[in-house]
Amino acid sequence: MTVSKNVTAYHGVANIKEAEMKELEAALKELVSGIEGLDEAAIMAMRERLNAKIKPLRSLGVLEDIAEQIAGIMRTSHPKIAGKAVLLMAGDHGVVAEGVSAAPQEITAQMFYSYLNGNAGINILACHAGAEVICTDVGIAPLLNPPELMINRVKSGTDNMMHGPAMSRKDALMAILTGAKVAADAIKSGVNILATGEVGIGNTTPSSALISVFTGHSVEEVTGRGTGVKDDALKHKQEVIKRAIEVNQPDVDDPIDVISKVGGLEIAALTGAILEASYQNVPVILDGIISVAAALTAAKIARLSASYMISSHSSEEQGQRLALKQMGLGPRLDFHMRLGEGTGAALMFPIAEAAIKIADEMATFETAGVTTGDF
Amino acid sequence: MTVSKNVTAYHGVANIKEAEMKELEAALKELVSGIEGLDEAAIMAMRERLNAKIKPLRSLGVLEDIAEQIAGIMRTSHPKIAGKAVLLMAGDHGVVAEGVSAAPQEITAQMFYSYLNGNAGINILACHAGAEVICTDVGIAPLLNPPELMINRVKSGTDNMMHGPAMSRKDALMAILTGAKVAADAIKSGVNILATGEVGIGNTTPSSALISVFTGHSVEEVTGRGTGVKDDALKHKQEVIKRAIEVNQPDVDDPIDVISKVGGLEIAALTGAILEASYQNVPVILDGIISVAAALTAAKIARLSASYMISSHSSEEQGQRLALKQMGLGPRLDFHMRLGEGTGAALMFPIAEAAIKIADEMATFETAGVTTGDF
Repeated sequence: MTVSKNVTAYHGVANIKEAEMKELEAALKELVSGIEGLDEAAIMAMRERLNAKIKPLRSLGVLEDIAEQIAGIMRTSHPKIAGKAVLLMAGDHGVVAEGVSAAPQEITAQMFYSYLNGNAGINILACHAGAEVICTDVGIAPLLNPPELMINRVKSGTDNMMHGPAMSRKDALMAILTGAKVAADAIKSGVNILATGEVGIGNTTPSSALISVFTGHSVEEVTGRGTGVKDDALKHKQEVIKRAIEVNQPDVDDPIDVISKVGGLEIAALTGAILEASYQNVPVILDGIISVAAALTAAKIARLSASYMISSHSSEEQGQRLALKQMGLGPRLDFHMRLGEGTGAALMFPIAEAAIKIADEMATFETAGVTTGDF
Repeated sequence: MTVSKNVTAYHGVANIKEAEMKELEAALKELVSGIEGLDEAAIMAMRERLNAKIKPLRSLGVLEDIAEQIAGIMRTSHPKIAGKAVLLMAGDHGVVAEGVSAAPQEITAQMFYSYLNGNAGINILACHAGAEVICTDVGIAPLLNPPELMINRVKSGTDNMMHGPAMSRKDALMAILTGAKVAADAIKSGVNILATGEVGIGNTTPSSALISVFTGHSVEEVTGRGTGVKDDALKHKQEVIKRAIEVNQPDVDDPIDVISKVGGLEIAALTGAILEASYQNVPVILDGIISVAAALTAAKIARLSASYMISSHSSEEQGQRLALKQMGLGPRLDFHMRLGEGTGAALMFPIAEAAIKIADEMATFETAGVTTGDF
């Protein structure tokens, strides 16, 4: 594939952390304005290739859809998957003070070290798929050791959104651009298909808040049990989300306002990563509710980014399906997963590769001497 | 895994083709009576391993279900996937004379050569999964060249079931035992996970007939468009199936009677392969409606065989889901596929391997030093 845009001077920003608000807004604007629709000619050329294969028309279903989508994204009838990576963004959430999660906050940092050690669920599944896992601390609360692990940290956890904005607008912009930069660096290193992953105790809470605000579905409709809260606690979690939305009054027409008030740092970073992938013609596989909340935010910021997304599993969190639906996407794996980290998304790498191999390696009616017709 | 049973003297039959009816019935009886339930202790031991991993309990959903199932099938807490194969059975159908398929019969043999050449859809997807494709002509109609390709052929296509039984009871038994023998040979060569695949123009027609008879669902409920028949032709296809059931009056309590009267040779061979896999503690991944019709027949012959089956995709043929449901299974991949050949099943090999890797490679709360609790 051709990466058509130069991102070494990162959207005009030399250093995201030291940039002024104005520069950050301008950088995001440049990023967003560079996102184009898919290449329809490449899609049609891929369709022609697939239609010549020895099979009933469109009989490989989603494999054919994905092959066409990747052709359209990579702007060629013969796309190749080169490098694969899961971008795993980490952040903590002030709202855990309200008891919205069954698991304690310390687990975010503990799991982050496990990802770095290469032995958590996402490491096993990414390795199985031949993909690397790129871990970024955008907003873990405790200090990490060694301190180099924190170089991309925007803020040490969000504030409690029950009492005010989760973060400032500037922090949200920084988190978005940090995620975009991480994606840009991965792409520069040769990766040309990404998957989204995350860790952050409590992060189904802001995800449900974002999905409720952006889709208009009630908090009850889009809020599930996360890491296992029980019935009463689920009701409490929903009350907390409703109160956070009420207190903050996010402006649905300003997605940065929404994600800063009721979002999360790792969610914003994934939003940025998706925008950057779209900008650079790289497909992005989505994971569960947190990834999809980030994707929905990306689609609200830049509508065209939705066409760069490949859905994976149907999360146990019902809000995920409603958010996917709003973007015209549907889940493909019915696996009852609720781990996050990108574990569902990683399972789609071999499927995407299979889709491309069908186009590249399968015989045609002509070469195989198989009778063709209207079937 | 341990293959506990010796199948060199193939269930007492030296040569399936030359065997007497009595010997065939006895061989099938021996095969069926050797199928046992899963090893519950191995399942519980696998569950314990999975519960110790750094993730919320059961949060990897279907991956954990599959890891436990394979442990129970292979009768060990530490199952290993060694060799993988798709068993692709081929057969023709006399009922195509009634115009139930949009594609001409000659395509069965043409596609069979494509599988042997290694460049059809199933070859690409099996190769991508590191699995071999084992092709067997159990009942193609035209002569094949070289004649060695036909050594397992039981009959050159079924008879037209609109006017009488698709095949004799003896042919059905021979086809079942031939499929079982093919599975036994694959297992002997080192394969310990199988997938089912098939080719046979017209074979959604007998598959729907089998599913209707075995599940009690109406022909309309279980009959789809196959390789693309249009509205009027679909109605006609349903009429043909109803008429075939009426003419033959299959005895639902005698599955061999049902498959001989309204089944197919490749379907019967897959039934046998599934029985043999169950007998030898080998998991079998099911594909679309034809494979699932064969699986349902196997489950009617030997109820316990259903626990050796792993479902894959949700076929575009609605009868497939109804048949899966009857066996307590549900589809996991929502891929809108309708090609057959085992293409949907082949996509589950990497999933099954991922499930085992989670058990083998992921860190535990103890080793990773992650806080544990009730979540």
